Amino acid sequence: MASAEIIAVGTELLLGQIVNSNAAFISQELAADGIYVYHHTVVGDNPERLKEVIKIAENRSDILIFTGGLGPTEDDITKQILAKHLKKDLVTDQFHMNKITEYFTSRSRTMTENNKLQAVIIEGSTVLNNDYGFAAGMFLKENNHTYILLPGPPSEMKPMFTRYANPLIVNENGGKTILESKILRFFGIGESQLAADLNDLIVTQVNPTIATYAGDNEVVVRVTATAKTKEEAAKLVNETEQEILRRDGTFLYGYGEVSLPELVTAMLLERKITISAAESFTAGLFQAEIARFPGISKIFKGGMVTYSAETKQSILEVSSQVIKEKGVVSSECASEMADNVRRLCNTDIGISFTGVAGPDSLEGHPAGTIWIGLSVKNHQTEAYQFVYGRDRNHNRRRAVKQGFQLIKQFLDANA
Amino acid sequence: MASAEIIAVGTELLLGQIVNSNAAFISQELAADGIYVYHHTVVGDNPERLKEVIKIAENRSDILIFTGGLGPTEDDITKQILAKHLKKDLVTDQFHMNKITEYFTSRSRTMTENNKLQAVIIEGSTVLNNDYGFAAGMFLKENNHTYILLPGPPSEMKPMFTRYANPLIVNENGGKTILESKILRFFGIGESQLAADLNDLIVTQVNPTIATYAGDNEVVVRVTATAKTKEEAAKLVNETEQEILRRDGTFLYGYGEVSLPELVTAMLLERKITISAAESFTAGLFQAEIARFPGISKIFKGGMVTYSAETKQSILEVSSQVIKEKGVVSSECASEMADNVRRLCNTDIGISFTGVAGPDSLEGHPAGTIWIGLSVKNHQTEAYQFVYGRDRNHNRRRAVKQGFQLIKQFLDANA
Repeated sequence: MASAEIIAVGTELLLGQIVNSNAAFISQELAADGIYVYHHTVVGDNPERLKEVIKIAENRSDILIFTGGLGPTEDDITKQILAKHLKKDLVTDQFHMNKITEYFTSRSRTMTENNKLQAVIIEGSTVLNNDYGFAAGMFLKENNHTYILLPGPPSEMKPMFTRYANPLIVNENGGKTILESKILRFFGIGESQLAADLNDLIVTQVNPTIATYAGDNEVVVRVTATAKTKEEAAKLVNETEQEILRRDGTFLYGYGEVSLPELVTAMLLERKITISAAESFTAGLFQAEIARFPGISKIFKGGMVTYSAETKQSILEVSSQVIKEKGVVSSECASEMADNVRRLCNTDIGISFTGVAGPDSLEGHPAGTIWIGLSVKNHQTEAYQFVYGRDRNHNRRRAVKQGFQLIKQFLDANA
Repeated sequence: MASAEIIAVGTELLLGQIVNSNAAFISQELAADGIYVYHHTVVGDNPERLKEVIKIAENRSDILIFTGGLGPTEDDITKQILAKHLKKDLVTDQFHMNKITEYFTSRSRTMTENNKLQAVIIEGSTVLNNDYGFAAGMFLKENNHTYILLPGPPSEMKPMFTRYANPLIVNENGGKTILESKILRFFGIGESQLAADLNDLIVTQVNPTIATYAGDNEVVVRVTATAKTKEEAAKLVNETEQEILRRDGTFLYGYGEVSLPELVTAMLLERKITISAAESFTAGLFQAEIARFPGISKIFKGGMVTYSAETKQSILEVSSQVIKEKGVVSSECASEMADNVRRLCNTDIGISFTGVAGPDSLEGHPAGTIWIGLSVKNHQTEAYQFVYGRDRNHNRRRAVKQGFQLIKQFLDANA
């Protein structure tokens, strides 16, 4: 199996002025090809250091993919240094030279000498066309290594990689094995608990591999398998997925790049179910999250933020008896908030959030004690209690996600 | 002058699932310190390859900064591999161990063995506190090299770097000269405009240096001076600050790590001015932002999210005449929303947000057309129009910040 290293050349990366998103893009593409990427390297526009980086990469990687340093300025040095290192000459690629000449002629502008540099390639390399710029790319096999040179700007690099470099890479290096990967998303279980539950699989399994990542109040699990065919790899992934779900399937909410709010709002839109919310300690966070999605006004009508006992009564019409006798951190208050907002906003679902955000306690309840009420037309109103920690804003974000999860569970159960 | 290398450890980076934004952040900070970063490296969760990467980095760099691989799972290996390489033991840091134990005890949850791993540090290292997580960071000097270990999640890494790692780095490696830095925060002016206004200073000035960063709808300017004494450095910073404020001082809202919402809520708390909000396209984002701050219930009472014309009338009592004749994207609607929420919630200030989030237009107004209403007891209600772009969630966040800015301007003018 061929291994690749992505070498980004550019001092602006080392100054933190831009993020190396090119490496992530190429890595994703190569993972899909079944080619392992074991290293990313960033080095500045410095001849000596670039030369050293090339030597180190040749020692540990089969495919060296360079991004950046193909432009017209003095500090663009990638192909010059690599040519010298490989003891190759630089020659002009007529296709790119014509393109540059034409550009300047058609604009009646003077072409400077350094513009021509962008059409120069390393002798013996296959030219990779630049459909969105002037700098020619290169593909070169030499001494058991493959060298690929791509421009730095993502708008030029990405199409060049996808259209011209990647097919050559797959042809020369891929083919033998296929890599298949699946993302599982969990809510309501911590990363360490999930990792403990799956520990034997994570530690002993070589193919597929299992990796867990902590997201914002959620856990992401990636299952990755390699095999000779796509079907075989998918089958391996599927078997491991089933074993994971057998252990912690109750916490799974979705697959791939989807988020829980995205999933739930799509379900509401699909089924034309309208919703409103009454929020105390989350203070609008749930509604703000719903409104992130364009076109949501078809099902989202609005709601209340009742941050004080006073506004719970004045604008949300929660009874003074409930507030006096049960308090605002109670099942009764949550239920009444959900019922009232549903009635006042005239929607199918009303959801409510009340509780103690923290760090201080409230009405004798410790920080992190929260209630979520769910009022649905023609259904019994329910209130659910959760007990979180003392981190105020963590609790608020977690409660909002929990609210989406409760709606999803209701929709799943009443499909 | 010391040179640094940033080593990110994590297979998810090599698969392109996340972008190495940590390296860019740390590079920016080190550039401000006057420390050169010559290499970024990314390596996977693989003991052999990580060990080789450490050796290579020791050969070419003075300071090795690791990000990632400090978590509780089997594939978190950074400190284990480095300890072995340096022939050091791993010991428990009691501060982080207590933090982890307390977390699980307070939730009556079982602490798994792997959780404890996060409190383990390399013997002889200075602990870097993790204010937003459990994994301890480390700072270690050994054999003429400095080793810094930071967690991978940016929400944990950034504060740990800024608060604890960076002062140690500057102290140990900056050395002979004193570095003084000041952060100026601007709202209402774009980064490119500000950079153009300050271009001559940015280009020609060596000491102090001026760097501009685009934040979330704001611009941050850092002025950094070096001198023999703290007083001398502060004087240099102050002179440059005055020159910057002479040019763009009207857009300055604060200094240092403070945010505009934080500043405004502190002013409201200080002056005991109560507030409520009525939000249409921002849908709770303003209120959710206010409620981030503990103790805010003293002045924040709540409000409405009126996402439809219907709820604007039913729960916020906006007159049907205004909605019919002027529409919801109008000065009149914004004013009435602000007046009504102030009356219904019985507060000193009522603020309203109505407009077109985008990407589509509404009532003939293009995406990005917004109105903010400000109703204050014993003052004339005002409505302000702003025209933004087509990015829905960018517009929503920007409007919320604009709302805080309008309140600040009112409070400044009526001190």
